[in-house]
Amino acid sequence: MSQARKKQVAIVGATGIAGQQFVAALRDHPWYDIAALAASARSAGKRYGDALRDASGALRWWCAEPPPPALLDVTVQEGARLNLDGIDIVFSAIESEPAKELEPLWAADRPVVSTASAFRYEDDVPLLIPGVNLPHAPLIKTQQSRRGWRGFVAPIPNCTTTGLAIALKPLHDHFGIERVSMTSMQGISGAGRSPGVLGLDMLDNVVPYIPGEEEKVARETAKILGVLRDDAVTPADCIVSATCTRAAVLEGHTEAVSVSLARPCSPADAAAAMREYQAGIDDLPSAPQQFITVHDDPFRPQPRIDRDADGGMTTSVGRLRPDPLWTNGLRFVLVSHNTKFGAAKGAVLVAEALQRDKIL
Amino acid sequence: MSQARKKQVAIVGATGIAGQQFVAALRDHPWYDIAALAASARSAGKRYGDALRDASGALRWWCAEPPPPALLDVTVQEGARLNLDGIDIVFSAIESEPAKELEPLWAADRPVVSTASAFRYEDDVPLLIPGVNLPHAPLIKTQQSRRGWRGFVAPIPNCTTTGLAIALKPLHDHFGIERVSMTSMQGISGAGRSPGVLGLDMLDNVVPYIPGEEEKVARETAKILGVLRDDAVTPADCIVSATCTRAAVLEGHTEAVSVSLARPCSPADAAAAMREYQAGIDDLPSAPQQFITVHDDPFRPQPRIDRDADGGMTTSVGRLRPDPLWTNGLRFVLVSHNTKFGAAKGAVLVAEALQRDKIL
Amino acid sequence: MSQARKKQVAIVGATGIAGQQFVAALRDHPWYDIAALAASARSAGKRYGDALRDASGALRWWCAEPPPPALLDVTVQEGARLNLDGIDIVFSAIESEPAKELEPLWAADRPVVSTASAFRYEDDVPLLIPGVNLPHAPLIKTQQSRRGWRGFVAPIPNCTTTGLAIALKPLHDHFGIERVSMTSMQGISGAGRSPGVLGLDMLDNVVPYIPGEEEKVARETAKILGVLRDDAVTPADCIVSATCTRAAVLEGHTEAVSVSLARPCSPADAAAAMREYQAGIDDLPSAPQQFITVHDDPFRPQPRIDRDADGGMTTSVGRLRPDPLWTNGLRFVLVSHNTKFGAAKGAVLVAEALQRDKIL
Amino acid sequence: MSQARKKQVAIVGATGIAGQQFVAALRDHPWYDIAALAASARSAGKRYGDALRDASGALRWWCAEPPPPALLDVTVQEGARLNLDGIDIVFSAIESEPAKELEPLWAADRPVVSTASAFRYEDDVPLLIPGVNLPHAPLIKTQQSRRGWRGFVAPIPNCTTTGLAIALKPLHDHFGIERVSMTSMQGISGAGRSPGVLGLDMLDNVVPYIPGEEEKVARETAKILGVLRDDAVTPADCIVSATCTRAAVLEGHTEAVSVSLARPCSPADAAAAMREYQAGIDDLPSAPQQFITVHDDPFRPQPRIDRDADGGMTTSVGRLRPDPLWTNGLRFVLVSHNTKFGAAKGAVLVAEALQRDKIL
Repeated sequence: MSQARKKQVAIVGATGIAGQQFVAALRDHPWYDIAALAASARSAGKRYGDALRDASGALRWWCAEPPPPALLDVTVQEGARLNLDGIDIVFSAIESEPAKELEPLWAADRPVVSTASAFRYEDDVPLLIPGVNLPHAPLIKTQQSRRGWRGFVAPIPNCTTTGLAIALKPLHDHFGIERVSMTSMQGISGAGRSPGVLGLDMLDNVVPYIPGEEEKVARETAKILGVLRDDAVTPADCIVSATCTRAAVLEGHTEAVSVSLARPCSPADAAAAMREYQAGIDDLPSAPQQFITVHDDPFRPQPRIDRDADGGMTTSVGRLRPDPLWTNGLRFVLVSHNTKFGAAKGAVLVAEALQRDKIL
Repeated sequence: MSQARKKQVAIVGATGIAGQQFVAALRDHPWYDIAALAASARSAGKRYGDALRDASGALRWWCAEPPPPALLDVTVQEGARLNLDGIDIVFSAIESEPAKELEPLWAADRPVVSTASAFRYEDDVPLLIPGVNLPHAPLIKTQQSRRGWRGFVAPIPNCTTTGLAIALKPLHDHFGIERVSMTSMQGISGAGRSPGVLGLDMLDNVVPYIPGEEEKVARETAKILGVLRDDAVTPADCIVSATCTRAAVLEGHTEAVSVSLARPCSPADAAAAMREYQAGIDDLPSAPQQFITVHDDPFRPQPRIDRDADGGMTTSVGRLRPDPLWTNGLRFVLVSHNTKFGAAKGAVLVAEALQRDKIL
Repeated sequence: MSQARKKQVAIVGATGIAGQQFVAALRDHPWYDIAALAASARSAGKRYGDALRDASGALRWWCAEPPPPALLDVTVQEGARLNLDGIDIVFSAIESEPAKELEPLWAADRPVVSTASAFRYEDDVPLLIPGVNLPHAPLIKTQQSRRGWRGFVAPIPNCTTTGLAIALKPLHDHFGIERVSMTSMQGISGAGRSPGVLGLDMLDNVVPYIPGEEEKVARETAKILGVLRDDAVTPADCIVSATCTRAAVLEGHTEAVSVSLARPCSPADAAAAMREYQAGIDDLPSAPQQFITVHDDPFRPQPRIDRDADGGMTTSVGRLRPDPLWTNGLRFVLVSHNTKFGAAKGAVLVAEALQRDKIL
Repeated sequence: MSQARKKQVAIVGATGIAGQQFVAALRDHPWYDIAALAASARSAGKRYGDALRDASGALRWWCAEPPPPALLDVTVQEGARLNLDGIDIVFSAIESEPAKELEPLWAADRPVVSTASAFRYEDDVPLLIPGVNLPHAPLIKTQQSRRGWRGFVAPIPNCTTTGLAIALKPLHDHFGIERVSMTSMQGISGAGRSPGVLGLDMLDNVVPYIPGEEEKVARETAKILGVLRDDAVTPADCIVSATCTRAAVLEGHTEAVSVSLARPCSPADAAAAMREYQAGIDDLPSAPQQFITVHDDPFRPQPRIDRDADGGMTTSVGRLRPDPLWTNGLRFVLVSHNTKFGAAKGAVLVAEALQRDKIL
């Protein structure tokens, strides 16, 4: 692909954890340049480097990769008044409530790829994971014509859905997913920056509830594994039931999964299906070398050890074994990076895929 | 019950975590006095206070309750040569391999209540949780006559089984358990003292595998929920499938449970069955006031907050909700204290129940 | 002392961590009844049980001891409009800024014992640690006459100062403190509830700065070890220099201390001075049995193991050894419970001491 | 420098954490090839990949960088019988006791660079930190002639000494170090693999004692800052006094330092001296770009954020401020990577420097 001119992108919600991860994900990106940063009115007008500081003056930067020095001098715009001149793509990392109002403003003119949940469940909105359900992407055309937008909104799924849908996809293709029972042990970075999870909550503890998370995982997984037909996605005919918990882990979501399949599937069959799965995204800059990494060592995957594998973009699976609960039952554990593939870098991958496929 | 004379007990494996928990569980016990401490040959002949120190001289004492000062001066015996004179009960906290050889030696003459797994799966050995399956206790008579022992071996279940079996029992009585899917997030104290779980493994991490644990939970739960019939326990006709993980939690096992029941059971039905369950052990010194504590707050139970409730002897349940995976599905989370009810204090409770019921 | 009638107390700032610790410290108190709870306007008018919940509905209760059920139904007042009718003592757990305005309002009529720093450095305000500097208490009379108050404000020191001043006091009495170099590793509960320390900051980390803490420790320690003379406290003639850090510990402040003394002091001399120190507060309900606990085991004190000793009211000292940096140098480590003696329970102890001594 | 042929190196103690870090440090090294791996008799004869597994079959690999796949098939030799044919350098990561016997065996014929403490305090042994005291390297010639060795032993300092000596060096050069008071909060990886620090010790805790550590830091720092004169190092005339603690941090040692200097030194002077310090090792492959990184943000350095900066080879300093304890007092905090510069990678850097300087 010729990259004569890099596309100019804006990051909205740029001061939060997800926004910072966009900054990290776009650092030295071959196709995209960060041309604008926006956030809430409280940060608007400040240097980005100042807007990142809290009341005590501490720089609140959460990514392992430091922010590009030049970016620290950029003046933060107010998201509600974002100047779209010269902007090709808007990456939105704002909360869901403001997203309902603001994302349509931008989408009227520009492609918006978003980590917010505001539009995930709309009929004319695909919930894209490149490598899993890019055939849903044409639904964007429906969205544009129905809403009269020149741009569009393409939200990514919840970070807990992402790893699950990726691991299920090869199984669904070969053996047919019927039921999914999942327990997550989620990293705390997923709780966001403000108010975030207190150290006091998480040291020496597990918190057994994350409001809204389980419903999102159930609904989104079925939509992602579904089929685009007649201008809408028909969800997969599978039941997904989850218990989502928060563990004392910085980053990386661990999920213990049990599935009932339509057809017999040995652990070796499952491993082969996952290892040989063709995601079809090798040409995208943010794609992992290996879409799914299957471990034979029963002590893997572990979030601290495996979350950053392949740039945080591979889904690590292990402990594949039969599940006696079901006729064709399978049990496994997965680790997925919640703020890489599960958030900003996953959204950048969506933009890359849509650009390659001439939708963006 | 008249307690004219306290029974004299020996603790074998007294230097390990489980042994130390026996010391803590028997502190100021109204029925039992610690009359002897034993451990491996390495510790034999030393003062208990010295045997608890490691190579660097540090006192390796793991319980919140400090050891009774007088006990620190007791000379540790070698377990293999334990002097049973004047001993009424042996509490065994040794590893499973030596237990196979040593526990029969003691059981020939004395009741042995053990945290080891060596005899758990023998046909003539009940796996007792007072309040759940004391009707299995008469199997001890079979054991004694079959093996020609004056004493007996009564092992307690694995610490992960204990909380699960307790929470399932009222559901099984009222609604019939058919299938159980469980994911545990286990505290690290359960990994024992030597070699234990390294800090390096557990900080900022989840370890997705505990060798042998899942098989134990499946087999033991079915046996405990089974029925004593014709000198043997017929296991309950339920399938138990588990993923057991280790979390960065000091003590307390958290378990996310999904059950399929034979008959309809709303969350309110389940809560009522658990709250109103009659364990029948109120007269035992180590019994909790409330056998099962049901939380309405969806953020509970949490291991750090709830593990020590009721002396570490209540099983805390929360997040009761329907599970769409099954016709009569129910989902919940439980927290159980792995080194209190799940180990030493649970074993002391077994001794108390057998004494009350004139079996010991 | 006759306790015919318990004194009626109000807790202001009752929804925060320090306020909750007042609730815990006053549970079943023999001299005091909680008669009123107050907080900011946001909580005013709500049931206390509701005011403790966050936006997601979770009960944000931080103490190991659960809140007394009856208290959950008390209606929270607004601190700025606290009704003082029938109130004998106000315990203030509010932030320093509002304390500057509100504490004088209450002090005009009632004794106020406060964890806020607002008045700590005023000339007519003693900074009391019972057992250390009760001879400073008469300064309250000066405060009352100078300000025309019937009540008074008696602030307690910063939680990091408390353990340090306690450990230094016997050394100062016998050997004369000249210089103090201290590095703290502080528990995260000290950072308060809002915004608190994020789990994201503290897992697998040390934060080397706590704004304002080092200055407080230096100034307060000298004032506490000083002498009341001519209606003012002359600070002790010692230099205190500190580095205050935050560690991944829930509760308990650990401090590594080096002191230069005026006269020779062996580690054994120091241990004897600390162990034999007469605090003169044995008759107060919240006082520890042992004012300072000196450990010979070099691996002690540890915050998790020692913070709760003696109800969180003893200061645990260990690793006493010569410090070659100074002619009469001594080095040691201490652990002090920051939210017990270092906050609410320490403030209750101040009230008890002032009541015993007829000042309150 | 011409690198026509890479030198062939052996790693002894290759299965432990420090040994694994050598493997990681030498991965794709431009000057060195790993030609042999050795460990204790227990591992000898096994494939390296098998020797890394524990009794449960888990791969015990501790570095973030995975082991090179080809290396997993190398047969581990027994250290005591290491075949030196074709080996140019021996990197020793064994314990100090066996090092006393084994390192001389190898040093008779080959250069040995070691993380063990066995020979650190010998008169004819330099304790090298490239960038700090390479002028001590000629002492190796004395060692060789005195002991009749063709090779030599060059131990690196204790991991806690390394960061301290680096930060002190520019201050010593410009202002003269007289006294050093230090409190460390050390990462747990420094405790080694066997037995290591238990998770049970470190969660929600600080351990205030590391046997032997404080004496090592005092003695080694003075030796490193000393001067080579008449075939021996005359230690610097400074007193170093330390309290070494273990914190709940995976990797990275944090040290709070107070120094008394011979001449006035403002925080700005200190920062300039550190920033402008010429280490003279820019041409070595393992050297950092910045020898010392000075932070202005008072919340830095933090071990989790700063330990990996510049490949774990920069020493991060912050919180520079006057220390009122001394006439020319300075206080600061540093973070140093204990298993990178403080262990294997630091030893590799020593080999590189000695090779460049034609001593090796």
